[in-house]
Amino acid sequence: MKQWPDLDTLKFNSDGLIPAISQQHDTGEILMMAWMNRDSLQETFTSGVACYWSRSRKQFWRKGETSGHVQHVKAIRTDCDRDTLLLIVDQVGVACHTGRKNCFYLEAQDNQWVEIAEPLVDPEAIYGKPSKN
Amino acid sequence: MKQWPDLDTLKFNSDGLIPAISQQHDTGEILMMAWMNRDSLQETFTSGVACYWSRSRKQFWRKGETSGHVQHVKAIRTDCDRDTLLLIVDQVGVACHTGRKNCFYLEAQDNQWVEIAEPLVDPEAIYGKPSKN
Repeated sequence: MKQWPDLDTLKFNSDGLIPAISQQHDTGEILMMAWMNRDSLQETFTSGVACYWSRSRKQFWRKGETSGHVQHVKAIRTDCDRDTLLLIVDQVGVACHTGRKNCFYLEAQDNQWVEIAEPLVDPEAIYGKPSKN
Repeated sequence: MKQWPDLDTLKFNSDGLIPAISQQHDTGEILMMAWMNRDSLQETFTSGVACYWSRSRKQFWRKGETSGHVQHVKAIRTDCDRDTLLLIVDQVGVACHTGRKNCFYLEAQDNQWVEIAEPLVDPEAIYGKPSKN
């Protein structure tokens, strides 16, 4: 995207971060939730693929950089409080590092968290072969 | 719901909170994102309607208590990191306090945040008449 709105109208938290939900554009599937800072959001606008902020590594997390499973961004929305982002994306491959299409595969059923989706891809096949990068 | 899984397996943040995304069960529409603490999540399991934690008021936020626009919870999921919740709900009325069905009505278009949805209900009609509680 060549232009973007004033990002200072968004409410980043005390760590300078804002939660970003990603949703598959054609199915409505919620893929994952991660965090962005102002710079990674601007990078996302610039590149057109989702770039999050890794809170553990304290650096850009260019989603899919290793796996090829990038998220092509079709729209970026915010909510009434401007403290959460919704990215409408086209997910290449799978969103979850476990090889599942989306990260929300644990469902409360009775007194257990039950896996409701199987991996579509072997995680080793995603991350184990640098030649696929 | 009569039972729930071990909530201590979830990762609440340093404030004891976890983000909770709500999605309309039949349309896939993402309604809103709010926060829960352990007690409000347990209350949600117990009551079957979404109960968030109001960070500003520091108390239970029983969604729809004033407006009647409750969220009947059909499923509660968590993600691979167990640090985000996804509530599959049936939203009565509208989710957003502005009268819109969902809160994510501001979309980045060129250099502006553009409203992409109109209110379906007058906010005053939601909150202005205590007799409707």
